[in-house]
Amino acid sequence: MIPPALSRYPVPKLEDLPEDIRARILAVQEKAGFIPNVFLTLAHRPDEFRAFFAYHDALMERESGLTKAEREMIVVATSGANDCHYCIVAHGAILRIYAKNALVADQVAANYRRADITPRQKAMLAFALKVSLRSSELVDEDFAAVRAHGFSEEDLWDIGAIAAFFALSNRMADLVSMRPNEEFFALGRIPRTK
Amino acid sequence: MIPPALSRYPVPKLEDLPEDIRARILAVQEKAGFIPNVFLTLAHRPDEFRAFFAYHDALMERESGLTKAEREMIVVATSGANDCHYCIVAHGAILRIYAKNALVADQVAANYRRADITPRQKAMLAFALKVSLRSSELVDEDFAAVRAHGFSEEDLWDIGAIAAFFALSNRMADLVSMRPNEEFFALGRIPRTK
Amino acid sequence: MIPPALSRYPVPKLEDLPEDIRARILAVQEKAGFIPNVFLTLAHRPDEFRAFFAYHDALMERESGLTKAEREMIVVATSGANDCHYCIVAHGAILRIYAKNALVADQVAANYRRADITPRQKAMLAFALKVSLRSSELVDEDFAAVRAHGFSEEDLWDIGAIAAFFALSNRMADLVSMRPNEEFFALGRIPRTK
Amino acid sequence: MIPPALSRYPVPKLEDLPEDIRARILAVQEKAGFIPNVFLTLAHRPDEFRAFFAYHDALMERESGLTKAEREMIVVATSGANDCHYCIVAHGAILRIYAKNALVADQVAANYRRADITPRQKAMLAFALKVSLRSSELVDEDFAAVRAHGFSEEDLWDIGAIAAFFALSNRMADLVSMRPNEEFFALGRIPRTK
Amino acid sequence: MIPPALSRYPVPKLEDLPEDIRARILAVQEKAGFIPNVFLTLAHRPDEFRAFFAYHDALMERESGLTKAEREMIVVATSGANDCHYCIVAHGAILRIYAKNALVADQVAANYRRADITPRQKAMLAFALKVSLRSSELVDEDFAAVRAHGFSEEDLWDIGAIAAFFALSNRMADLVSMRPNEEFFALGRIPRTK
Amino acid sequence: MIPPALSRYPVPKLEDLPEDIRARILAVQEKAGFIPNVFLTLAHRPDEFRAFFAYHDALMERESGLTKAEREMIVVATSGANDCHYCIVAHGAILRIYAKNALVADQVAANYRRADITPRQKAMLAFALKVSLRSSELVDEDFAAVRAHGFSEEDLWDIGAIAAFFALSNRMADLVSMRPNEEFFALGRIPRTK
Repeated sequence: MIPPALSRYPVPKLEDLPEDIRARILAVQEKAGFIPNVFLTLAHRPDEFRAFFAYHDALMERESGLTKAEREMIVVATSGANDCHYCIVAHGAILRIYAKNALVADQVAANYRRADITPRQKAMLAFALKVSLRSSELVDEDFAAVRAHGFSEEDLWDIGAIAAFFALSNRMADLVSMRPNEEFFALGRIPRTK
Repeated sequence: MIPPALSRYPVPKLEDLPEDIRARILAVQEKAGFIPNVFLTLAHRPDEFRAFFAYHDALMERESGLTKAEREMIVVATSGANDCHYCIVAHGAILRIYAKNALVADQVAANYRRADITPRQKAMLAFALKVSLRSSELVDEDFAAVRAHGFSEEDLWDIGAIAAFFALSNRMADLVSMRPNEEFFALGRIPRTK
Repeated sequence: MIPPALSRYPVPKLEDLPEDIRARILAVQEKAGFIPNVFLTLAHRPDEFRAFFAYHDALMERESGLTKAEREMIVVATSGANDCHYCIVAHGAILRIYAKNALVADQVAANYRRADITPRQKAMLAFALKVSLRSSELVDEDFAAVRAHGFSEEDLWDIGAIAAFFALSNRMADLVSMRPNEEFFALGRIPRTK
Repeated sequence: MIPPALSRYPVPKLEDLPEDIRARILAVQEKAGFIPNVFLTLAHRPDEFRAFFAYHDALMERESGLTKAEREMIVVATSGANDCHYCIVAHGAILRIYAKNALVADQVAANYRRADITPRQKAMLAFALKVSLRSSELVDEDFAAVRAHGFSEEDLWDIGAIAAFFALSNRMADLVSMRPNEEFFALGRIPRTK
Repeated sequence: MIPPALSRYPVPKLEDLPEDIRARILAVQEKAGFIPNVFLTLAHRPDEFRAFFAYHDALMERESGLTKAEREMIVVATSGANDCHYCIVAHGAILRIYAKNALVADQVAANYRRADITPRQKAMLAFALKVSLRSSELVDEDFAAVRAHGFSEEDLWDIGAIAAFFALSNRMADLVSMRPNEEFFALGRIPRTK
Repeated sequence: MIPPALSRYPVPKLEDLPEDIRARILAVQEKAGFIPNVFLTLAHRPDEFRAFFAYHDALMERESGLTKAEREMIVVATSGANDCHYCIVAHGAILRIYAKNALVADQVAANYRRADITPRQKAMLAFALKVSLRSSELVDEDFAAVRAHGFSEEDLWDIGAIAAFFALSNRMADLVSMRPNEEFFALGRIPRTK
């Protein structure tokens, strides 16, 4: 069986891409050892590509009260709730690496309530899932419940905005039928040191 | 009763904003006659502001097989499905103006199936709502059903990507409890010329 | 494009209607300046027409602990939850007029949690929506939560019965594809006096 | 254990009721041998009582392309979908009697797809359930699917209007916690003649 | 109209069954006076038959803090939530007999919140329905809420495991379109002694 | 952080178990190299243990028109839909091994529509998910859609019965908070040979 294409849409060649986009992609390739398909598939539309990754970086690389692993937990939990194959697999790998934990991504993708995470992280994910799935029902009590675990108002923006950004990201991955790189499936699956 | 604030988060003063953001906001104000609250409330985080509006413009102002009114229909229909007060009111006003039609926004916000729009537009909105609400269930038949109305593959990306972007936008509006400007409620409610 | 008919079913002429129904309709026309389509479309079945408006009046015009504006809020909020185009538009107009407020109808139709209404009114609408959407799950705690805001047992009947009556009304409007009069869209959209 | 009251609200005494309502109730009692609790509990509000039963009779006793048993099937199927204890039990009894069939009420209350009814009746109930549960999604194809079984446009109004009226009725029964008479449970449970 | 078959699959003859299965079935027949169709229809696959009834007996006939009537309440309530015609009718009859109560089965099948049962039994059914419908969302608070009514940890296993077993059973009944015996509909419908 | 226990309930020691259960567990350990926690946690109740595994083996080890990998696909897809952490992880490992494919388990757990499987397998999983999530809505068309891919009636029983058995299994895993062995996470994640 021939595996499906990376995308339902044309995937540009690196040499045909605008310079800034090609540079970004090459930098990722150098760091990761391969080019995650989200870069190649979204490069079909350069302006949207630029905005997408600018938004991603603004949320995922800023100074924050959330660790990078916690931010990836939000991505994996909300992508799991949305059944988004690309995001579960790709961000699951990143979460394993950041958390130095081979188990947590599969746990959080399935059901954060059964994951080996702290009560504070469970509260964070409960809030993220409400933003992801029923944001119109957000009320003051939801904010208070997370703040009770020591999160600041800015942390709450981070949690909600990451959930919101991956609401977009999940839908784009489904729209183009984005295929995760095979490399992601095995990354970070080292035995956990106890 | 004191009306709620524009946002759950601090709203920066124009004079405290980075130059590029202030220029963008002043340009909008000059054109619209007022500053839509989405600009003031998201300016709390300049980097996210820049990415948000870059993404918005990339989708809503590009050349497309969809008219600007059709793109706003997608915004209003998906925001209606998500019960997003800000986006229904603000983009409902924009839709009335682009469509030169005082009725269509309220129709589409409530139920596109009963709206005075073409079968082609109903197919477009059915696809947009599937992306917005159940994108993991998208299958080839969904794409074929819309293409049968003469939409191109790139038009389908536009439809889906607008639905995806406002999935983000709706959640951000709910996260910050974004309040629509009073001006929006009445804009474009001129009698329709038959 | 020819606008859709008022109803999927035949709409009787005024002169063909039974005397009591014609009189009622003419009285409404004199007061409102036009004949709301719910009267013309339901007149297709005179006995059901009589029962429908007798029920409506029994609930909406009786002495009550709820103001007329509050009763219309219930109509608009539950019709919004049911995506009923006719009822949102027609009763939105009535709500704007009774409340002397140009904004509240669109707010409540979208999401009562973000509306400029009192906590007491939010509790009223939470109860109304539970009756409208999940009445089998009503338990004593739901009644207690509303009573805590000073509503009497009879007020609770009013809230629940209005939600129940418009559960019927929304379904009839969808069944016949009832079209709202254009007059409703603009009614009561005067600037709010603060 | 003391059984719950007939209603969460006061139940008037027959002698305290307006003459027309008492007459109606006594007529029912004479015919049925007991007074169904829906009469006693709704009599708490005479005007609503009159409108409720006028509406009921207009739908359930008019000349129609639907038999009386078919109309009760609609009541039982939609009340089953709404988990309405009173209506399932009371109208289940009436359905057994009209259909001269001891089994069909329990079948239809649980799942009409597994009931011993005709394909035409299954199409009727599929339409009724769509009106009951998702009327905003009604489209021309739904009407066509039922008409294909020989139902007229007026029959479709009957089906939809009965589903709509019992959407009201189910919610009122839940609001007042209406208790079915014990007589209903056993009525019509004669062995079916094969 | 010819009634549907007992099952979508072949129903073996008693004389063709393995000895242990025939013996079990004859024993049931002797006790009940008829052979419930679940025995005949599942006997199509002897190994699955044996495991199914071994599991059933392990849960329903063990020593337990739950009475046999309470265990049948769990079956009827969860089967009602799953709209399983066979299980509602067959286990409704068994519940009536064990509880010596002609009303409770129809009450619990429709809506346990309106049933004539104790608060302890309502808490038991709330837990059972969460296991049946949303087990991934079970959290410590759910266990605590039931324990507060005096149930032990082993009782909680019983409640949950019965709900889980009938999640299987309901799906098998739907898969084979299992038809309840007519005898079940009338069993146990004796007048309740007050 | 101390990892959660294997189960919310006591986990028996091997030496305290009945002989047949201990033998079964030791045989599994010899074959797999470790004892999957489902054996240890369910052994808390020996009779239920015996029935559970007898049922499992009757379905998963019988001669069938489905390969063992296909049967595990059903387990993983339905467990994914039910958010069951234990079953996704443990049966995902088994699926990888049977299918000799490092990717398919994560694909099917997330969204079978995007998995590298055949159209026949997608039809199989669509049927399995309907049994798992909405079995009361099964109609003849569902059976016909799968048969069109060459499945026999007995294959359909297999598909449906596996979905039904894991409806039970998922709920038991959630009830006891069953923890997957760490070994499962990495099993079968060898590079796929193309």
